[in-house]
Amino acid sequence: MPEFEPTDKSTLRQHPQRARYDRETVHAILDEALVCHVGFVQNGQPFVIPMNCARDGERLLLHGAPASRVVRVLATGAPVCITITLIDSLVVAAEASHHAMNYRCVMIFGRACEITDPVEKRAALVRFVEHFLPGHMEHTGPLRDADVAAVAVLAIPLHEVSAKIRAVPPSPDTARTPPRWAGQIPLRLIALPPAPAPGNTAPLPLTLVSFTRPGLLSL
Amino acid sequence: MPEFEPTDKSTLRQHPQRARYDRETVHAILDEALVCHVGFVQNGQPFVIPMNCARDGERLLLHGAPASRVVRVLATGAPVCITITLIDSLVVAAEASHHAMNYRCVMIFGRACEITDPVEKRAALVRFVEHFLPGHMEHTGPLRDADVAAVAVLAIPLHEVSAKIRAVPPSPDTARTPPRWAGQIPLRLIALPPAPAPGNTAPLPLTLVSFTRPGLLSL
Repeated sequence: MPEFEPTDKSTLRQHPQRARYDRETVHAILDEALVCHVGFVQNGQPFVIPMNCARDGERLLLHGAPASRVVRVLATGAPVCITITLIDSLVVAAEASHHAMNYRCVMIFGRACEITDPVEKRAALVRFVEHFLPGHMEHTGPLRDADVAAVAVLAIPLHEVSAKIRAVPPSPDTARTPPRWAGQIPLRLIALPPAPAPGNTAPLPLTLVSFTRPGLLSL
Repeated sequence: MPEFEPTDKSTLRQHPQRARYDRETVHAILDEALVCHVGFVQNGQPFVIPMNCARDGERLLLHGAPASRVVRVLATGAPVCITITLIDSLVVAAEASHHAMNYRCVMIFGRACEITDPVEKRAALVRFVEHFLPGHMEHTGPLRDADVAAVAVLAIPLHEVSAKIRAVPPSPDTARTPPRWAGQIPLRLIALPPAPAPGNTAPLPLTLVSFTRPGLLSL
């Protein structure tokens, strides 16, 4: 696949050396995402709504309540900006003003289409389960028609997209005697052992016994 | 302090039982935040930019490069929506369509003011260090005047604000024999041991030996 073509909106101007426009980098960040932040405009007012997302090839899927503001506005094809941010470390510099973070983020500009075809919609919802709970669809069986009908599903094509990655350690302190410490505090997301719901009588399914997905550190 | 008064924009309409308008809840979520997503409009186009943030009493602080789009637009007093989202667990239901997430989020509507007074600006930047690296200012000494001058600092008053918290387990499966598992996979952010920068010769400062801050699980 060709790289994303940077546009006026998607070209990174601050620290352009951190920009990535290749699909592999963008896909890897999206595939780790638990949440995206969806920005849209209503009557001149910006809104930023956290939503679950799942990549399906060259598009990003969202779902929500049909009555919600974000679904109603996006379904009209209004311009949207979707941002996904993963934090990798706190960068601790020798100078307090040089503290920073290492992170990976993706920004997607475009317009959403609502998926209304029941077959395509069902497949999109299965993608969500696979994104968050890989392999777990086998345990729960197919989605019910009424549940598929009750939710709105939106797709945004990956077309006007950029990634930005900061992955640099701080400079060591060579100016002072004794020197000040400089380095990173790596941050990771971990899954604690699954906690059964009150009243659950079923054994933990195999798919959750040693649960992992992209972006989760396995202990 | 009185609760935040829900406005047309900040009133939660989807799952209103999950809404919180009290300051204690909002403050606690903001104090865990490593990143916020800042939404604004330029020429009708929404932008969502991930930024570091720090709460300073009843306002949220942001900082950025003076030349960046987000700083330039926010400094004009344009309307802004800032969203902070913390993910607590994957909710695994017996029915695939009932999978969910437990999370806490805050949404702030308002307009930013740029902090230009050097004394107030310096104090605001110190708040950022205290937010991310509690106690660490002692190790690095004061910020340099040139560094304070080089960055833009913005403040958004906590005035039109709501929190939304989902913290419910799934229902146990009572419909099937044998039943399907229902429960949660708790997710936590952890700090790995500090990694010195290449060339660092200084010992790890005491503030980082057993580093912790709100929202980080200590192992």
